[in-house]
Amino acid sequence: MIKVTGYAAKHSFSRLKPYEFEREEARAHEVEIDVLYCGVCHSDIHQVKNEWSNTVYPCVPGHEIVGRVTKVGPAVKRHAVGDLVGVGCMIDSCGQCEACQCGDQNYCGSPNSWLATYNGPLLPKAKAGENIYGRDNTFGGYSNVLVVKEDFVLKIPAGLRPEVAAPILCAGVTTYSPMKRWGVKAGDKVGVIGMGGLGHMAAKLAKALGAEVTLFTTTAAKIEEAEKLGFKAVLEKDKKALEELATSFDFILSTVPEKHDLNPFVELLKRDSVLCVVGALEPLAPTDNMQMALKRRSVAGSLIGNLAETQEVLDFCAEHGIGPEIEMIRIQDVNDAYKKVEKGDARFRYVIDMASLKEEIDGEA
Amino acid sequence: MIKVTGYAAKHSFSRLKPYEFEREEARAHEVEIDVLYCGVCHSDIHQVKNEWSNTVYPCVPGHEIVGRVTKVGPAVKRHAVGDLVGVGCMIDSCGQCEACQCGDQNYCGSPNSWLATYNGPLLPKAKAGENIYGRDNTFGGYSNVLVVKEDFVLKIPAGLRPEVAAPILCAGVTTYSPMKRWGVKAGDKVGVIGMGGLGHMAAKLAKALGAEVTLFTTTAAKIEEAEKLGFKAVLEKDKKALEELATSFDFILSTVPEKHDLNPFVELLKRDSVLCVVGALEPLAPTDNMQMALKRRSVAGSLIGNLAETQEVLDFCAEHGIGPEIEMIRIQDVNDAYKKVEKGDARFRYVIDMASLKEEIDGEA
Repeated sequence: MIKVTGYAAKHSFSRLKPYEFEREEARAHEVEIDVLYCGVCHSDIHQVKNEWSNTVYPCVPGHEIVGRVTKVGPAVKRHAVGDLVGVGCMIDSCGQCEACQCGDQNYCGSPNSWLATYNGPLLPKAKAGENIYGRDNTFGGYSNVLVVKEDFVLKIPAGLRPEVAAPILCAGVTTYSPMKRWGVKAGDKVGVIGMGGLGHMAAKLAKALGAEVTLFTTTAAKIEEAEKLGFKAVLEKDKKALEELATSFDFILSTVPEKHDLNPFVELLKRDSVLCVVGALEPLAPTDNMQMALKRRSVAGSLIGNLAETQEVLDFCAEHGIGPEIEMIRIQDVNDAYKKVEKGDARFRYVIDMASLKEEIDGEA
Repeated sequence: MIKVTGYAAKHSFSRLKPYEFEREEARAHEVEIDVLYCGVCHSDIHQVKNEWSNTVYPCVPGHEIVGRVTKVGPAVKRHAVGDLVGVGCMIDSCGQCEACQCGDQNYCGSPNSWLATYNGPLLPKAKAGENIYGRDNTFGGYSNVLVVKEDFVLKIPAGLRPEVAAPILCAGVTTYSPMKRWGVKAGDKVGVIGMGGLGHMAAKLAKALGAEVTLFTTTAAKIEEAEKLGFKAVLEKDKKALEELATSFDFILSTVPEKHDLNPFVELLKRDSVLCVVGALEPLAPTDNMQMALKRRSVAGSLIGNLAETQEVLDFCAEHGIGPEIEMIRIQDVNDAYKKVEKGDARFRYVIDMASLKEEIDGEA
């Protein structure tokens, strides 16, 4: 067994605190990773606070992980000791179902769906009560060591700073996957609702795909921030501006991490176009089917992205020289960072420098 | 001018009563039609009662019209005197916009959208205040004579009884169009929510396309009715039955003409599949994005169908020997028929035999 130090929440109203636990040694197809950086995703906060009512405690969050391979199992072929690698939201899937066979591990159709990097299987309470992964809980990247099946480990391409790569593993692929699915291409007009970690990443990716991007925000201060990043931004409450944009978008992505009114944005979609919601995993506000039907519009959901897309978006970012705007923090400051994320004050993604965790380990030694 | 007799509502709380009005003679590209049959659509009731807040009175409903050509303008090429023809929901569109150029007149992007067979332009209050059709109101098929642009007149194929053809012009194409758009094909599993005029027609069309059909109803008595028509039906409140159908449908069509909970049906969709709502033109109940995202599902709207699809579905029905289950009524009984439709007591579509209107005309003569 490997002694591991992480940061965990013990229950839904606790702060994250240092936490010691063990991981099994890497098996034949697994690699051991020394964690260097881990992004702070809004879903970490939902999960820590049990806002999706499925959190298993203790909860060691973190699914935007970049590190270096320190050991490989004897059957490992994809990675070698010393490689700079990434781990996103998934660390296993059934591999047998139709979705997995299509390479869409993120839609794994097994009773437990895929195995999440932390918090165990996506669907822990399968109908038959079985758990194909044999574990109820998993511990994520707010820790110094990770052991993961090689197929679920991505390569960090040269030319991408490792700390910048981290948020691409969730915020990047979560916004890239639906844009690929619904065919965003050069010349398209793409709207992005929300300007947090996902939103600003979506805007950069859409622009690199050749689209004309408009960001929508409820925060006046973010208009200027968007312009600094080279994007046009519109205040959601500016009805006149929205009216002028009616029926003009080829694709709109909502990255708002909570229930919000989609109707003003549905009206901005061209005929046959899609508004995809990736931010909120909860009941949405009612959509008006008059506006949907009038232009055969759709509202869709999308969940992260598959492994191939994750590698693709990492390579795409390296190739186009883009990445998230990040602010480095120490693990000791993660609870304060959470508060800022909740208030919408992050600009735009916090990334934990895991070197800071060494203090905890040394302190205990 | 042509003297016309119809049935009209004078205001939102009036019954339909005999109404005399005039239509202009057929111009170069128009045909004059002696109306033989007209279907009773649930939207006629919404419109008569101003439930969409856009009714122009007097309101002469009717957009499932079958009749015989009695005169043609000098430039008419598609139709000849004596032809059996149909008119659906639209009688004109701009012809210039991207949608019209694609043959999707039902999504006409002009300021007024398309011109409805009754109640005037779909969007009467265009932003700029213009009205490209020059008329605020139009009068539908609950009348003895119609004058329509030849391009908006469909051919009733031999082998289809004219009274059976009538509801295909709205209920048929409204359900056929989204099934074609989302690629329903042989072997697919298709769900149809609601078992009224649209629902039972959707089921017949899906079956003829080679799909395995399941109807969903809130009315226990309709289970047997569905079986009589050769369909499997499930009670919406039968949670166990719904659970067994989870993630198994390639396409679901909701034909319920009012707000209802879509979430139990979203869960029945396979990955990447679509639930299309054609019945309700109003705010829908909130959908849970967790269920949408988990399988990248979509909820979409769709509005009737284009002219080519309307001709296609008429021909398809003739070819497959299918059509709506109809009950013939006299125009004098239309107000009672409305009450039965509202209660869900119709089995399944009322069609007005317009010969009955002759009594009103003779009575006045």
